[in-house]
Amino acid sequence: MIDVKLQSVLSSLAQPAKELGAQSPGRRAPDARYVKLNTNENPFPLPTMVWRSAISALERQYLYPEDDNIGLREAAADAYGLSKDHVIAGNGSSELLALIYRAFLGPGDSVAMMSPGFSFNRKLALLQRAKLLEVSCSDSPSIPIEQFLLGPAKDAKFILLANPNNPTGTFVSIDDIERLVAQSDRLIVLDEAYVDFAPDNGLRLVHRYPNLLLLRTLSKSYAAAGIRVGFCLGHPEIIGRLRNIQNVFNMNIIGQAVGVSILSHRAAYEENHRHIKNERERVATQLRQFGFGVAPSHTNFLLARVPNGHDGKWWHAALERDGILVAVFADDGLDDCIRISIGTKEQMDSFLTAVAAIRGHEKR
Amino acid sequence: MIDVKLQSVLSSLAQPAKELGAQSPGRRAPDARYVKLNTNENPFPLPTMVWRSAISALERQYLYPEDDNIGLREAAADAYGLSKDHVIAGNGSSELLALIYRAFLGPGDSVAMMSPGFSFNRKLALLQRAKLLEVSCSDSPSIPIEQFLLGPAKDAKFILLANPNNPTGTFVSIDDIERLVAQSDRLIVLDEAYVDFAPDNGLRLVHRYPNLLLLRTLSKSYAAAGIRVGFCLGHPEIIGRLRNIQNVFNMNIIGQAVGVSILSHRAAYEENHRHIKNERERVATQLRQFGFGVAPSHTNFLLARVPNGHDGKWWHAALERDGILVAVFADDGLDDCIRISIGTKEQMDSFLTAVAAIRGHEKR
Repeated sequence: MIDVKLQSVLSSLAQPAKELGAQSPGRRAPDARYVKLNTNENPFPLPTMVWRSAISALERQYLYPEDDNIGLREAAADAYGLSKDHVIAGNGSSELLALIYRAFLGPGDSVAMMSPGFSFNRKLALLQRAKLLEVSCSDSPSIPIEQFLLGPAKDAKFILLANPNNPTGTFVSIDDIERLVAQSDRLIVLDEAYVDFAPDNGLRLVHRYPNLLLLRTLSKSYAAAGIRVGFCLGHPEIIGRLRNIQNVFNMNIIGQAVGVSILSHRAAYEENHRHIKNERERVATQLRQFGFGVAPSHTNFLLARVPNGHDGKWWHAALERDGILVAVFADDGLDDCIRISIGTKEQMDSFLTAVAAIRGHEKR
Repeated sequence: MIDVKLQSVLSSLAQPAKELGAQSPGRRAPDARYVKLNTNENPFPLPTMVWRSAISALERQYLYPEDDNIGLREAAADAYGLSKDHVIAGNGSSELLALIYRAFLGPGDSVAMMSPGFSFNRKLALLQRAKLLEVSCSDSPSIPIEQFLLGPAKDAKFILLANPNNPTGTFVSIDDIERLVAQSDRLIVLDEAYVDFAPDNGLRLVHRYPNLLLLRTLSKSYAAAGIRVGFCLGHPEIIGRLRNIQNVFNMNIIGQAVGVSILSHRAAYEENHRHIKNERERVATQLRQFGFGVAPSHTNFLLARVPNGHDGKWWHAALERDGILVAVFADDGLDDCIRISIGTKEQMDSFLTAVAAIRGHEKR
């Protein structure tokens, strides 16, 4: 009897949930003894003022959070020189990316993404029964604008770019981004997760073009990945649509309070950003001396092509044995690469020592 | 030029986002000087042990939260006598309710809901382009089982019940719930947000029936509405589908840590639950003496039919002038009711004093 009922319920699933199947077990957090350089976190504590605002929020834990994240959206508007109607806030920019998929894609629609990019997009497209068109950018120093304006991507409901890009670390000039936004009448979604480590940003384009949405996060440059705070900035008419399909009381009071406080104390992070950029250059130089090919990075990570003889997976395993976690990728052309997040000086010294030891063993 | 681009982007919205339009401005939180008895919060502080676990989580704010909320799901499984595969966790049960809508409803499908119920369901149905069938239960002391098994609700993809129900406060015996679950091959979603104030609960049915999903929240009886922690319990096969369509890193580290800690210290809340139930009966008795019609409640609120001469809105406004916030409803048959959350003794005394004063003025 039980099986018949279960089959009946499973058969009443909607198409995407049916096709996607069940979730595999999640991954447990790695042992805290690892030097964790695999997910571009920024291992620095909260500034004192931000800590205090978190504590004070915690004292109101029994009250529902503020409706529609008004105060947090106002703080973001202040920080970015916009009005709160230009801003929607979420549990990380990933919540907002998923909202954009829901708002714009129906069955059979398509979305175009710069590739290699954030692999989670494949699932988001499946959920809407939409097609994800991946436009390769590996051969191009900039955005292949023609490929987005013409060809199969022409009819995409929106176009996803990341600048600086992950995992490549490359930065495209804002002029090039603007050219695409100006020439297209499609929506362009520009993920600027790493922008605080880059020389420029696309904020000024939000005022100029209603077909641009900018994604920002406090996860990377503001060391708050665990608090889940992200923003999407754009034309109030588009942002209003996204807010309308967002879950009620989506963020908790700590996300709201820490978000407001970080945005009000951004100067407290400048020293941290300087440190990350300095460490990044120091590690890049050393890695090149060890025989790695390291492209210039405008983020808090390095994508390094490993020396001949092994692939990325081999290095990943060798480093893990030495207690260091780095990222590897299944994408075409990235199988001989590792991605290293930039952390504290101590963490980077441990990493470099491990690399030196592995290279030494190899040569013997 | 700008308007043409905006129109082009708006025209590429998917149907539900197009139909729903833009969000109206959110509501700001009321002034803290109000006695807030309008949203069934439970105005008590976190137990010391729970507070400590929140602080300790805050020290790891730069790390991404644990994938798939494993630790939190394990804590819920322990608390409810299930395995973690029976549990999905979210930012309040509202996130999980929305997931159920996404998993089971496509355009043209229908969902049946006991009415009066949670009005947010109307929007969730619209988002899936599905039909919400509201089955009136106001005339029935229990669930109108026939109306769910036969009639238009027969083909609903799932059936939504709340027990105890909001805003009526009524409790239906678990035997009656079981009869419906056993006789139907549809999915039954049972919201038990208020169950800790009731004489029984449906947990034992989760083991017996794969067509039952139970929603639980820490917002009401565990005084953590601001932290946003909710669970859905059910057959692993169904829960796995929901986990698979859930956003990555949906909850923050504070939601995870406070959730785990509350579930491990549930005994610390027993005194609070006793207090709420005692206050509820004291306030009900007094309200009846003031001429209100108060139905028995198995929740942390009272639904009170106001004395002849005025409607719920009038009382809402009169109480607000005295600094007391209560809830009113637009539903049929509820226009002469107010809903009062049960808070601290001081809050309830303020409420009763205000009612006495208003009744005194009226009679003069």
